Amino acid sequence: MQYPEPIAKLIDSFMKLPGIGPKTAVRLAFHVINMNEEDVLEFGRSLVNVKRKLIYCSVCQNISDRDPCYICDDSSRDRSVICVVQDPKDVMAIEKMRDYNGLYHVLHGSISPVDGIGPEDIKITELIQRLSDEGIKEIILATNPTIEGEATAMYISRLVKPIGIRVTRIAHGLPVGGDLEYADEVTLSKALEGRREL
Amino acid sequence: MQYPEPIAKLIDSFMKLPGIGPKTAVRLAFHVINMNEEDVLEFGRSLVNVKRKLIYCSVCQNISDRDPCYICDDSSRDRSVICVVQDPKDVMAIEKMRDYNGLYHVLHGSISPVDGIGPEDIKITELIQRLSDEGIKEIILATNPTIEGEATAMYISRLVKPIGIRVTRIAHGLPVGGDLEYADEVTLSKALEGRREL
Repeated sequence: MQYPEPIAKLIDSFMKLPGIGPKTAVRLAFHVINMNEEDVLEFGRSLVNVKRKLIYCSVCQNISDRDPCYICDDSSRDRSVICVVQDPKDVMAIEKMRDYNGLYHVLHGSISPVDGIGPEDIKITELIQRLSDEGIKEIILATNPTIEGEATAMYISRLVKPIGIRVTRIAHGLPVGGDLEYADEVTLSKALEGRREL
Repeated sequence: MQYPEPIAKLIDSFMKLPGIGPKTAVRLAFHVINMNEEDVLEFGRSLVNVKRKLIYCSVCQNISDRDPCYICDDSSRDRSVICVVQDPKDVMAIEKMRDYNGLYHVLHGSISPVDGIGPEDIKITELIQRLSDEGIKEIILATNPTIEGEATAMYISRLVKPIGIRVTRIAHGLPVGGDLEYADEVTLSKALEGRREL
C-alpha cells in the first residue's frame, strides 16, 4: 500500500532536503496535515519566493532581496576593507559578532581540484574587479580553515598582493572555551605558530 | 543584521516543523536556494495540495485523496474485521506487514483525561455507527501500548462487547530481536502474562 498521492509527493519533497530520511519525512509530512492552513500556504509561498525573489548582489555576490544589497549600500560602513568568505552563511556569522564594519565578498565555494572546482568556478574575478574600482586598503581572507579554504586564501593572496593591497588571514588557534587536551595536532600547531606577545 | 526577507520567512516556516531548530532551519533554507527550481515549485505545490486535496475517508476516517478511501472501497478485503488504530501512520505500519486483509478505523488520537481529550474528541462515535451498518464480526484494538492507548482500548471494548461483536487486543510482549535483559518491567510482566502453550 502507498500513501495517498498528495502526501506521498510531500514525503518525496521532504526527502530531498539534507539530513532528512524516510522516517523523518513521513513525520514532517503528517505534521503538515495538522498544521493550520495559513501556515502551510505561507510555507509554500516562502519556498517559491526564495527561488524567485532572492538575487545575488552584483557587488559582493551575497544573496539579497535588492541590488546592491544593503551592506554594500550602507554609507556608514568602512568601504576600505573587504572580508572574503566562502558562503552567505559566513556573512551572517560575522555580522552576528557586531565587531566588523567593513564590506564583504562572497566566493560561493572554495578552490577544490579534487571536486573539479577551479578559481574560475568561484567569484574571484568579481573580487579582483572590485579592487580596481574602489579605494580598498585591506582584504581579510576569512575562508574556512580547511585544505580548500587555505588553498583559496593562498590563491587570492597571490593575486591581490602585487596590486599593493594589504592581505590578511583570520587567525587559526584554539577555539575559546575549547580544551587543549582535546585539540587536534594541526590546530595546536597553528595555535603555537600564531602565538603573540602578552 | 537580518537575513533577506524571503529567506528569513522560509527559515521561520521550517522552524514550525517538529524537531527542526534554528540551525537546521537555516541549513535547510540555504539548501533550498541551491535546489533546482522545478523541485522547489513541486515542494511548494505538495505542501498546498496536502492541505487542499487530502480528505478524511467518511467510513474509516483515514486520510485519503478519495472518499471512500481505496481500502474501504476494495471488495477483495475481509469486511468482517475492523482494526482500530490511533493514527493514519499506524494504518501504513500494519499495511506494510501485508498480513492483515481486513478494514481499518482511525481514531485520530486516544482518550487522555490529563490532556483534556475525552471519548467524544476522537472518532469513537463513527466506529460505533459502522458496527450497526455492516456485518462486522471482530474488532481488533491496535491502539498504542501506553496508558492512553490502553484506556481507549478498554473504553471501546466496553461499548462494543454488549453488541455481541468479538473484541480482541493486539499482544504485548518482547519485541522480536529484543533482549530480555534490557526489557522494562511492564513489558516483561505483559510478556509473562500473555505466555502461550507451545
